[in-house]
Amino acid sequence: MKLIIGNKAYSSWSLRGWLACKQSGLAFEEVVVPLYDEEWDKRREGDEFAPSSGKVPILWDGDAVVWDSLAIVEYLSDKVGRERFWPEDEAARAMARSMAAEMHSSFAALRRKHSMNIRQIFAPKRPDDDVIADLSRIMELWAQARARFGGDGDFLFGEFGAADIMFAPVCTRIVTYSLPTPRFAAAYVMAVLSHPFMQDWIAGAQAEDWVLEQFEQPAA
Amino acid sequence: MKLIIGNKAYSSWSLRGWLACKQSGLAFEEVVVPLYDEEWDKRREGDEFAPSSGKVPILWDGDAVVWDSLAIVEYLSDKVGRERFWPEDEAARAMARSMAAEMHSSFAALRRKHSMNIRQIFAPKRPDDDVIADLSRIMELWAQARARFGGDGDFLFGEFGAADIMFAPVCTRIVTYSLPTPRFAAAYVMAVLSHPFMQDWIAGAQAEDWVLEQFEQPAA
Repeated sequence: MKLIIGNKAYSSWSLRGWLACKQSGLAFEEVVVPLYDEEWDKRREGDEFAPSSGKVPILWDGDAVVWDSLAIVEYLSDKVGRERFWPEDEAARAMARSMAAEMHSSFAALRRKHSMNIRQIFAPKRPDDDVIADLSRIMELWAQARARFGGDGDFLFGEFGAADIMFAPVCTRIVTYSLPTPRFAAAYVMAVLSHPFMQDWIAGAQAEDWVLEQFEQPAA
Repeated sequence: MKLIIGNKAYSSWSLRGWLACKQSGLAFEEVVVPLYDEEWDKRREGDEFAPSSGKVPILWDGDAVVWDSLAIVEYLSDKVGRERFWPEDEAARAMARSMAAEMHSSFAALRRKHSMNIRQIFAPKRPDDDVIADLSRIMELWAQARARFGGDGDFLFGEFGAADIMFAPVCTRIVTYSLPTPRFAAAYVMAVLSHPFMQDWIAGAQAEDWVLEQFEQPAA
């Protein structure tokens, strides 16, 4: 398998596809596509709203090409067994699948105004109201998942899985922009960021030797 | 099972959830939630960009609640068997899953500027450039799926399945707004609209006894 991804510091959908590959347990080759300055705005819009043609991540597996992060999760779940990605319990799985799909299509304000930036922590600033609305909805989802299905585990549905993969970039944004977070959510964010896969990705982002100026400033 | 949907004439995500329930072969009760005028804009935005809390469709199945159309497809696919929704061939399934996910997160211009209206056919008008870009991408996807995996069937991957369910509202929009379509795609649109499930939905939309004025005019 070969996974084509963007810059590790900035490409949030790439992170999701990459975590899905790690979670599958299958070996894969990682191909980083440099995102040039002049293309960045376009790609970034694509990254956030249209993970489509020419966008990352893309998984190649023999004849199979999967060009969307949620589709990569499902494709790999078919391949290695659903239990690595989704809860066994039907009610839990219903919620996990709904949350993953909602992350896939929603939270535009948070995604646009607080783009992922693994290497930075900016000074705290009150988020815009539409960002607060997005965050409130996310906190509500996390709280429900943890309360109903988290059990003794550290993650949304106990064990690390697809729902955590889909929300992982949100966890990094909460740190990068010091977004207001209730205590239970802060603990969850730390669990995600401490996960070995995330530590591996963060190390990769820190090792990248180029920087886009406009992404090293806090969003307006 | 109980499926909560919006107005059949206008609610495109409801159509997807409903088709998924029909395709599952399971019995389900249909609950139509009236969408009031003052809430419509908000809901419509939700309909197109955030199929989330308080939005339709919602599938209730015992303790399981599924609130997103793509999640409903996957939930039902788990329940009745993947072969009713997704191709067996791995490369075909990779493409079908990617297309479904891309439909779920993309094509904002087409969705916003040509909202679904099952009961109307408006006079042809040149679509905006961003809509044409969306349509071109969709035609490219349809052409590839039909050519590589359509075989002797009438649908994207031969038999009617999840990819067709996700693109069904696009088929109705092509007719409603006389959007320019190559011949192969026109044949596919007709196959979708002639499908017994779609005929059933269209009859339901025609039987609805209320109308929202702003949706009975062509999009600006």
